[in-house]
Amino acid sequence: MKIILILNGPNLNLLGKRETSIYGSQSFESYFEQLKEDYASSVHLEYYQSNIEGEIIDKIQAVGFSYDGIILNAGAYTHTSIAIADAVRAISSPVIEVHISNIYARESYRHQSFIAEACKGSIVGFGLDSYRLAVEALIQN
Amino acid sequence: MKIILILNGPNLNLLGKRETSIYGSQSFESYFEQLKEDYASSVHLEYYQSNIEGEIIDKIQAVGFSYDGIILNAGAYTHTSIAIADAVRAISSPVIEVHISNIYARESYRHQSFIAEACKGSIVGFGLDSYRLAVEALIQN
Amino acid sequence: MKIILILNGPNLNLLGKRETSIYGSQSFESYFEQLKEDYASSVHLEYYQSNIEGEIIDKIQAVGFSYDGIILNAGAYTHTSIAIADAVRAISSPVIEVHISNIYARESYRHQSFIAEACKGSIVGFGLDSYRLAVEALIQN
Amino acid sequence: MKIILILNGPNLNLLGKRETSIYGSQSFESYFEQLKEDYASSVHLEYYQSNIEGEIIDKIQAVGFSYDGIILNAGAYTHTSIAIADAVRAISSPVIEVHISNIYARESYRHQSFIAEACKGSIVGFGLDSYRLAVEALIQN
Amino acid sequence: MKIILILNGPNLNLLGKRETSIYGSQSFESYFEQLKEDYASSVHLEYYQSNIEGEIIDKIQAVGFSYDGIILNAGAYTHTSIAIADAVRAISSPVIEVHISNIYARESYRHQSFIAEACKGSIVGFGLDSYRLAVEALIQN
Amino acid sequence: MKIILILNGPNLNLLGKRETSIYGSQSFESYFEQLKEDYASSVHLEYYQSNIEGEIIDKIQAVGFSYDGIILNAGAYTHTSIAIADAVRAISSPVIEVHISNIYARESYRHQSFIAEACKGSIVGFGLDSYRLAVEALIQN
Amino acid sequence: MKIILILNGPNLNLLGKRETSIYGSQSFESYFEQLKEDYASSVHLEYYQSNIEGEIIDKIQAVGFSYDGIILNAGAYTHTSIAIADAVRAISSPVIEVHISNIYARESYRHQSFIAEACKGSIVGFGLDSYRLAVEALIQN
Amino acid sequence: MKIILILNGPNLNLLGKRETSIYGSQSFESYFEQLKEDYASSVHLEYYQSNIEGEIIDKIQAVGFSYDGIILNAGAYTHTSIAIADAVRAISSPVIEVHISNIYARESYRHQSFIAEACKGSIVGFGLDSYRLAVEALIQN
Amino acid sequence: MKIILILNGPNLNLLGKRETSIYGSQSFESYFEQLKEDYASSVHLEYYQSNIEGEIIDKIQAVGFSYDGIILNAGAYTHTSIAIADAVRAISSPVIEVHISNIYARESYRHQSFIAEACKGSIVGFGLDSYRLAVEALIQN
Amino acid sequence: MKIILILNGPNLNLLGKRETSIYGSQSFESYFEQLKEDYASSVHLEYYQSNIEGEIIDKIQAVGFSYDGIILNAGAYTHTSIAIADAVRAISSPVIEVHISNIYARESYRHQSFIAEACKGSIVGFGLDSYRLAVEALIQN
Amino acid sequence: MKIILILNGPNLNLLGKRETSIYGSQSFESYFEQLKEDYASSVHLEYYQSNIEGEIIDKIQAVGFSYDGIILNAGAYTHTSIAIADAVRAISSPVIEVHISNIYARESYRHQSFIAEACKGSIVGFGLDSYRLAVEALIQN
Amino acid sequence: MKIILILNGPNLNLLGKRETSIYGSQSFESYFEQLKEDYASSVHLEYYQSNIEGEIIDKIQAVGFSYDGIILNAGAYTHTSIAIADAVRAISSPVIEVHISNIYARESYRHQSFIAEACKGSIVGFGLDSYRLAVEALIQN
Repeated sequence: MKIILILNGPNLNLLGKRETSIYGSQSFESYFEQLKEDYASSVHLEYYQSNIEGEIIDKIQAVGFSYDGIILNAGAYTHTSIAIADAVRAISSPVIEVHISNIYARESYRHQSFIAEACKGSIVGFGLDSYRLAVEALIQN
Repeated sequence: MKIILILNGPNLNLLGKRETSIYGSQSFESYFEQLKEDYASSVHLEYYQSNIEGEIIDKIQAVGFSYDGIILNAGAYTHTSIAIADAVRAISSPVIEVHISNIYARESYRHQSFIAEACKGSIVGFGLDSYRLAVEALIQN
Repeated sequence: MKIILILNGPNLNLLGKRETSIYGSQSFESYFEQLKEDYASSVHLEYYQSNIEGEIIDKIQAVGFSYDGIILNAGAYTHTSIAIADAVRAISSPVIEVHISNIYARESYRHQSFIAEACKGSIVGFGLDSYRLAVEALIQN
Repeated sequence: MKIILILNGPNLNLLGKRETSIYGSQSFESYFEQLKEDYASSVHLEYYQSNIEGEIIDKIQAVGFSYDGIILNAGAYTHTSIAIADAVRAISSPVIEVHISNIYARESYRHQSFIAEACKGSIVGFGLDSYRLAVEALIQN
Repeated sequence: MKIILILNGPNLNLLGKRETSIYGSQSFESYFEQLKEDYASSVHLEYYQSNIEGEIIDKIQAVGFSYDGIILNAGAYTHTSIAIADAVRAISSPVIEVHISNIYARESYRHQSFIAEACKGSIVGFGLDSYRLAVEALIQN
Repeated sequence: MKIILILNGPNLNLLGKRETSIYGSQSFESYFEQLKEDYASSVHLEYYQSNIEGEIIDKIQAVGFSYDGIILNAGAYTHTSIAIADAVRAISSPVIEVHISNIYARESYRHQSFIAEACKGSIVGFGLDSYRLAVEALIQN
Repeated sequence: MKIILILNGPNLNLLGKRETSIYGSQSFESYFEQLKEDYASSVHLEYYQSNIEGEIIDKIQAVGFSYDGIILNAGAYTHTSIAIADAVRAISSPVIEVHISNIYARESYRHQSFIAEACKGSIVGFGLDSYRLAVEALIQN
Repeated sequence: MKIILILNGPNLNLLGKRETSIYGSQSFESYFEQLKEDYASSVHLEYYQSNIEGEIIDKIQAVGFSYDGIILNAGAYTHTSIAIADAVRAISSPVIEVHISNIYARESYRHQSFIAEACKGSIVGFGLDSYRLAVEALIQN
Repeated sequence: MKIILILNGPNLNLLGKRETSIYGSQSFESYFEQLKEDYASSVHLEYYQSNIEGEIIDKIQAVGFSYDGIILNAGAYTHTSIAIADAVRAISSPVIEVHISNIYARESYRHQSFIAEACKGSIVGFGLDSYRLAVEALIQN
Repeated sequence: MKIILILNGPNLNLLGKRETSIYGSQSFESYFEQLKEDYASSVHLEYYQSNIEGEIIDKIQAVGFSYDGIILNAGAYTHTSIAIADAVRAISSPVIEVHISNIYARESYRHQSFIAEACKGSIVGFGLDSYRLAVEALIQN
Repeated sequence: MKIILILNGPNLNLLGKRETSIYGSQSFESYFEQLKEDYASSVHLEYYQSNIEGEIIDKIQAVGFSYDGIILNAGAYTHTSIAIADAVRAISSPVIEVHISNIYARESYRHQSFIAEACKGSIVGFGLDSYRLAVEALIQN
Repeated sequence: MKIILILNGPNLNLLGKRETSIYGSQSFESYFEQLKEDYASSVHLEYYQSNIEGEIIDKIQAVGFSYDGIILNAGAYTHTSIAIADAVRAISSPVIEVHISNIYARESYRHQSFIAEACKGSIVGFGLDSYRLAVEALIQN
């Protein structure tokens, strides 16, 4: 059975509470429980969230040599953190970048991703379903 | 049953023949046959390819008010065509942008997409599997 | 009697159907019939539309040495096509650039026009009436 | 009967005297007399010119809540004045931007217009006939 | 005997008719006949022109795995088409970029070539003789 | 008792009338009367408005060597006038920049202020209350 | 009684010790005690400082749905943190940006603020008095 | 005898009073009296100063078809006024740009001059002596 | 005896494990033990590593008023952290920037260092030997 | 018989020794001897190389009013020397720019050529054969 | 008696021969003889020209601690040489930058001068008379 | 015994004489004598300085295939010379870039180094001690 970490960055703990016109009104926790259940037979899913850039790096390093994949929504650090991208490059597990909203249809400073070029691939704009598609991608690839 | 068009842009007819270190060695035709079969019970998949920007626009207009979705890999027109993006905006069917390679890990002029902001979402970097993930996304969304 | 070609570029065949808050809800065909009639006594008006950049060039070349003027709405090619601008420079008929919406009040990539500098003049932002004003301009100039 | 103000900015009082290869050799005053006469039956035309940015703003404010339209050739202030653009936004009368020469075929610092995005539309490059076309546009729109 | 295609892009069908101060007054057809004759003993020369970007791609793909070389003057597409450059990269025949005029002594938007980096080499500025030099280059290289 | 000048730039005479969703519906004159009264015991407040850049400079020079402070809302000249900034640098009275709206949440050309770097400080975004806060700042500093 | 948090970012714990020519020689702690006392009758003031970007986000989230306002001096994170700006956008309490020094008169990379556009307003350049003015602003607004 | 106008722009009326480390401590009036006297036998010198951009244009137009030269220090308008540059281009008298300080050793936004390219020549950085050198230049050229 | 801190930023705890073609295969810990021993007679060396930007700032503040020097390899924060640079400016101990790889021969976003301008000097590109050279520099300077 | 100078700039004396994967392994001297011999009947070829920018200018001036052409490979000065370009403009002999490698497929700072716009034409990317093609061009043009 | 060096850079030895529409048809040598004679009673003038950047630096160093001034026309090195500007900064003699043509009315890459900011002042655009004005400036300043 | 060349570029012959607040007051010659003596037992040190870019290239080529290392302070050519960087790339001896002052704390045009990316490493900002550290680096690496 594959082990996959879903790793969320800053302000994603407020999902369901924050700017609901952009991010929707479901909390990530309730979504995660459903997702875990749906894939219970084939994938072991874990979840971790932090607002601290360096803790995200710590986590990537901690699981990145043994897990079968990381699904990373680095939130706003996507656009500013070379350090997270370097952590992604430093490990051996494949990492998939996801975003809930279509970042290309928002402010121009959200169009640049330091992380994208270090990841295997990106899935952007499908709401919470972006996470499920990333699980699908990791199962197959 | 949903009807979905896979729409490929310039040079994608050479898949399997062209720069195989980037794009892989499978032709799109053989991949498409397999995909069609895999989803035969739930989705009707069609395929169209053109090297001509305006023919891609013609096709988007032709199916974009009746099909359940378009999976669009606009190839190099991704980075230069406002006209295709306008066609996507003009229709009512949801459009998903896909790319085979990770365009963010390539030349800087491939990082900009006029099309991304007009689409529902983007799936980038999973090889031909990007198309399957897009089908999954359209089924669910 | 003057002969004038109205030449419309990509997605303008969807007028009346596409993003009506920006472009209005009248189709170009019905507008054109009225316009033709209004000027029937003094001007012979023709109409051509294509989504294909090169076909627009073909048309400009075909009429550009014999007609009394071309009214060109190149749509999104306005912002990306040096080739159409070169065609305008290559012919002897005067060309007038028109736009339905005020392109300067839209996305920044719509503020640049390769075509404007090659034309006699530009008429921008008056809805479909931009075409009539261009006919007026060609009659007088 | 509609009341329309033609409002000219800096150096346009020198028309007919200044760089005649670009601007032509007719003075604006003589052109205006003819124009006024041509439209005497349907439009009341007024004319005001100033070299002072703030006086142009004063005038826009003075007539901008009662006249049926303003035809504004802000001259070189077109490219540098956010304040005039703000005045245009602040009033209720429609404003049409005109230019005598094709500003897009001149120095690159003349390609940017702060005023265009605040106006209803723009008419550029038809010599003095640009003013007549603007009158036509205001009558119809 | 080597087979070489001369492939001309938009507006080059107007050579001899268009902006003769820049491009000269000889038509390409008459030049081509002479060139063909001059090299008749050693090279088989073919000629194709299109104003449509995608047709140029089609042609590159059609001959690019069997001919001994392509001499490509992509005209204005040189500066805007990543798709043509991708086609050049996708094939195995060597491609030489030629230009009639010295594009570096013209408008700044003609200084950039997406195509140059994908070609074997470039020959720029020798009038129609640029084509002959490209034939010479292909014979030797 | 301190003497302070409130100096308003272009279009601020239209407050309460102009784009009320951005600037609110109170006229500056009525606000000023209230403010004057509130501080009557400790500060003598004066008010001057002009749409003319040079008259604003004249005023800064006239009071800038004797008053205890200037509260300057230069309106759109904030973003284009080095000359007003030079006047601020040339005098000895402290100058405080104020803005009614949050200029950083508006068009990008409103993010740059030539005047800010020449002033003691800036107060931005509190509606008309920005002026009162500036009075408070001048009293204490 | 209103509850307001003063939230200081990196290196502001060194106030009074660090580059005193720019930031002054008073420690923030002693200033805060005085401020608290001055407003004791009407406002409950709290103070928190961290050098860690994510802890600042944690704090904003913790108080941002219940307090009456946050006075945020994000220090150098002002210029680099989209994540803090997102936290400000995510909560319901009003946030006021303050800076001790005039950031517009310093290095150019200190002129840009990601945070300003997400806040209600900004108060910049009044030394420690910037904090008092922000309290005043929150009381009134 | 030649007639020459010295035309000073914004804040130059404060010479001797303003930022004396940059501009020196002599007032322009006293310098002008001396200069006038020194050239009394060969040149008639006049002097005009305004803080208003449009009044500078008015003056250039008023003398620019009859005087033998204009010595123009447009102050901060140098860097922002296309309208003054247009006035210089519109007249027939030669105009010489002067600056007291070395603008190239100051803030980067003072390095650009719209006016320089419209003038005969520029004299920059010699303190008030720049004016005398300009008189010398006009006498000889 | 001098006390010196070696302070490593994000991902440097993975040295010897991460991208060994760029960073080499020795762990920092084993290198540090050797270095400590080599300088045992003259320098007391300490070592600290964190992936968290703010903890690096905390450490700089903690030792920066008493130690004889800090050798700082801020890793990817080098290119994004103004806050670390501000901490360096805030303390009195000299700080030397080191990098293992030649950052100027890598991606362009690694060419900019916010930290360099705040440090005494930089030593870049000598592998782990960069640290020893920095010790040498601190001993002598 | 035509006299032509081949003029090589910095580091081209190392051909055959330097970065042979880019520049090939033949020395220029041996290539030149062969070339000279091949054209012995129709062209007199001379060769000069210098690493000093000014000596290249001296040489251009020395032969540029009497020789029938100059074949100039300015090496890295291509991208930085306006002075060499000015020398090319100053003389009457035609100059052809050549490069051995395809400079458009290398570092971005090698894409700009100050020299190209001053030359008759450019031949780029054919290895040493670029020189022969330039001789061909000079014979015919 | 003052000793002044006139120092000319690349291609200025061709004056009278080179692009005479820009630079005039008099050789510098004949102009210099006249100038020397005109000032024989008060100034000792010397002249040196080189096409080699480093020789210009050598000369500046050689005379820059003893002569009363240097009149420097660095030609095209004006726009590219930081090294000459550093030499000007390194010496104690005042240096005046001169240009024959109005460099601001030419190509944009001639608008930037590294040298201007290091000089006392600049005199630009008066033909050869620029040199005389510089002598005048050095006599007085 | 290793043979190392210290190679200094423009204006470094003035050390001790030039801008002593930046570069210190010791001449390089006296420093070099001491350094040579200090390393007499293990390294043979040579010294060469030139103000001429091409002579620096000549020297790099002359020693670059036989010496054990070059310590290169290219002075202002660091920021403008691709040709010197090419010479460094062309040879086999390792080259270390040194700078006396911290170039990152100076003008922005001194932040870019064409040379850094071609060298083994860089040592910047330690005054003349930068040279000693470079010797240390070459001994060990």
